Amino acid sequence: MSPSLFPQHIIAQKRDGGVLSRAEIGAFVRGATDGSWADYQLSALLMAIFLRGMTPEETALYTDAMMRSGVVADLTAVPGIKVDKHSTGGVGDKVSIPLAPMVVACGVPVPMISGRGLGHSGGTLDKLESIPGFRTDLSLADYCAQVARIGCALIGQTKDLAPSDKKLYALRDVTATVECIPLICGSILAKKLAEGIDALVLDVKFGRGAFMKTEEQARELAHALVQVGRAGGKKVRALLTAMNQPLGRTVGNALEVGESIACLHGEGPADLMEVTYALGAQMLLLGGKAEDVAEAEAKLQAVIADGSALEKFREIVVAQGGDGRVVDEPDRLPQASHKVILPAPATGIITDVDAMQVALAALRLGAGRAKAEDRIDPGVGVSGLVKIGEPIEAGAALCTIHASDASSAKVAVEMLGKAIRVGNEAPPKARLIGELLS
Amino acid sequence: MSPSLFPQHIIAQKRDGGVLSRAEIGAFVRGATDGSWADYQLSALLMAIFLRGMTPEETALYTDAMMRSGVVADLTAVPGIKVDKHSTGGVGDKVSIPLAPMVVACGVPVPMISGRGLGHSGGTLDKLESIPGFRTDLSLADYCAQVARIGCALIGQTKDLAPSDKKLYALRDVTATVECIPLICGSILAKKLAEGIDALVLDVKFGRGAFMKTEEQARELAHALVQVGRAGGKKVRALLTAMNQPLGRTVGNALEVGESIACLHGEGPADLMEVTYALGAQMLLLGGKAEDVAEAEAKLQAVIADGSALEKFREIVVAQGGDGRVVDEPDRLPQASHKVILPAPATGIITDVDAMQVALAALRLGAGRAKAEDRIDPGVGVSGLVKIGEPIEAGAALCTIHASDASSAKVAVEMLGKAIRVGNEAPPKARLIGELLS
Repeated sequence: MSPSLFPQHIIAQKRDGGVLSRAEIGAFVRGATDGSWADYQLSALLMAIFLRGMTPEETALYTDAMMRSGVVADLTAVPGIKVDKHSTGGVGDKVSIPLAPMVVACGVPVPMISGRGLGHSGGTLDKLESIPGFRTDLSLADYCAQVARIGCALIGQTKDLAPSDKKLYALRDVTATVECIPLICGSILAKKLAEGIDALVLDVKFGRGAFMKTEEQARELAHALVQVGRAGGKKVRALLTAMNQPLGRTVGNALEVGESIACLHGEGPADLMEVTYALGAQMLLLGGKAEDVAEAEAKLQAVIADGSALEKFREIVVAQGGDGRVVDEPDRLPQASHKVILPAPATGIITDVDAMQVALAALRLGAGRAKAEDRIDPGVGVSGLVKIGEPIEAGAALCTIHASDASSAKVAVEMLGKAIRVGNEAPPKARLIGELLS
Repeated sequence: MSPSLFPQHIIAQKRDGGVLSRAEIGAFVRGATDGSWADYQLSALLMAIFLRGMTPEETALYTDAMMRSGVVADLTAVPGIKVDKHSTGGVGDKVSIPLAPMVVACGVPVPMISGRGLGHSGGTLDKLESIPGFRTDLSLADYCAQVARIGCALIGQTKDLAPSDKKLYALRDVTATVECIPLICGSILAKKLAEGIDALVLDVKFGRGAFMKTEEQARELAHALVQVGRAGGKKVRALLTAMNQPLGRTVGNALEVGESIACLHGEGPADLMEVTYALGAQMLLLGGKAEDVAEAEAKLQAVIADGSALEKFREIVVAQGGDGRVVDEPDRLPQASHKVILPAPATGIITDVDAMQVALAALRLGAGRAKAEDRIDPGVGVSGLVKIGEPIEAGAALCTIHASDASSAKVAVEMLGKAIRVGNEAPPKARLIGELLS
């Protein structure tokens, strides 16, 4: 190894504000993958990157190296433009579940490799696994075959996909180096670029319940993601969407699957459908199945109206070992033993539903993971959540709490009682869909 | 543990430019000592400290926590003001060896815990160990007893002295976080404050052969060291001294002990004596044994002239198991098998003796360690080195090379031939002793 590629030398370069070369970034990512760099060297460089930044070129090289650290799915044999959607994560964000079958039903293949929930943010995999029998641990070969056969597969990250990201993310999590745009870009896009897609629509969320607290931060991240995704040879668009109150009326795994199925039956809540249509329209545009947003949204509405999106979802569920009957009988989904209604303390208007506080209540109920090794309880969560601006009468339900025992229900009642506010005046209506970056 | 003392929280604080509290710095140093922080967390914080800095107060708290991570020698039973000297390291810097017995002979106790050489810089311990039988691995109890009995002990760092420094220095070495003034301060002073001293004179070197390349950098380090040492309750002074050419005329362990003995016989080279007197004078002033520099230097000259410094050195050597006869018969020191004279290529004036290049030649001969686990050859090195500004005749010796075999001698001849330059004009005389910070 050339001395210029010694870990100390590369760390010192970035420490001093230098720009790392392809060879240096390659050595770093290889070091994370094969263990030739010690963890303490990786974390020292991660901190130096956090504080010194990376140029767009460095970020693209980093993402490329991360992608190439493992296998890259080859879907070239699947006809059409393959389009995926990725969300930076929010509360009640089950959009992928109705969206994927809707877009596939419109003729665009959707290969989707998703993550698990951690902290306040839920994960698509955990939600799907609440469907009895549903398997998300398909091999890459089975994943490719299923995309070819039915246009879609919804699976989890296999261990040979961007393994460097798994290593580096675990280190970032315990060394205060998570909130760094170039590192976030690399982590998100390395996995997405490895899944065999041609185009990607990003849902970059901002607000109390999102990773990025302000629209400005979200725009910065979205801009970087679009730039780096393009450097990776993909068509990429990003939509900024608000995440101040939960999306839809449910939070919790089986409850969110139930709401997703309702969407496909044409009974989805307005805010959830608005985001789903907006992202789906961009996917159809990138997938070459519509000329403009209006045409795209009309097509998406049609596949709900004619039941073909619902049938596509059933097909996916069955293909992945799940019980297809849940599509018509959502009661087959796991249910919590304790259901408690949270009554409104007064008559008035809902002035706040704090997404983060709702998420923490759901976490307390067992719907999520505080630590990676925590087990999830699929049936618990919150349903029937009121939305900001809705009128309410004293004693009417603000939401229903689904708990596995009386004591966690009691804590959740208290937490949600603080998260949901009733007042006299309607707050100004907040925009849900923000800027489109393309 | 309070969540505010979680490693991630403390790392994030410093990452964001915050000032760490005593509790936070304590948790970090404790984490390094007892292993409750992972290495990757330690290195992430070290990099954050490197890039964000530490205030003088943080540096003092860090130093204090490092000192308290192990045992602290108690010399309160020894009468008098105990004074030590520490050098930031140079080439041919054997000052401690003649200095300690000189100062002790003047009535000031000198408890001295030294380090080993690493890289281009030699270590007092390695030099002393070239004396047959000399032991530097005294227990802390034996060290205290010897200081009480004869006023001086010259030992190595025991494993229970500031163990956090050993851990953190090893990490810094491989994560590009060495050259950071607050971390350097902590590392140097934690060990010195633990050795039971009341006062400390620092020799902060600058130049090609020193850690700090410019006088400005050395001043910054010296300033920080004085400030932090005082915060630790010690009287501290720092002298800036030049390190562009080797100090004295020898580089190599036994050769430097020989030169040190010559100093005690009143036959030391001028530059080495100048630095030794300057540092010794400050030690006598701090030790309350002189009113001014002139009085101090007169006392130091007197203990050489009357042989009492030499006798004190013999006493120390014998006390630590060494062969006291070397004091009168330096030929008893280990000798290299091959001695080669490097002749001057032309008649003229010595225009350069590059300290770093000479050090690297000595390292090549086996006088030092490139890696911590390397073994040292006590007899090898360079003697009879010319000094910048001296006249030379073609063919006369620029130096004598002491090697263990012909092949390393040949490489050293080549390296030294480049390190030592002969020209026609004497370069401007450079100042050896710079500013005193107190």
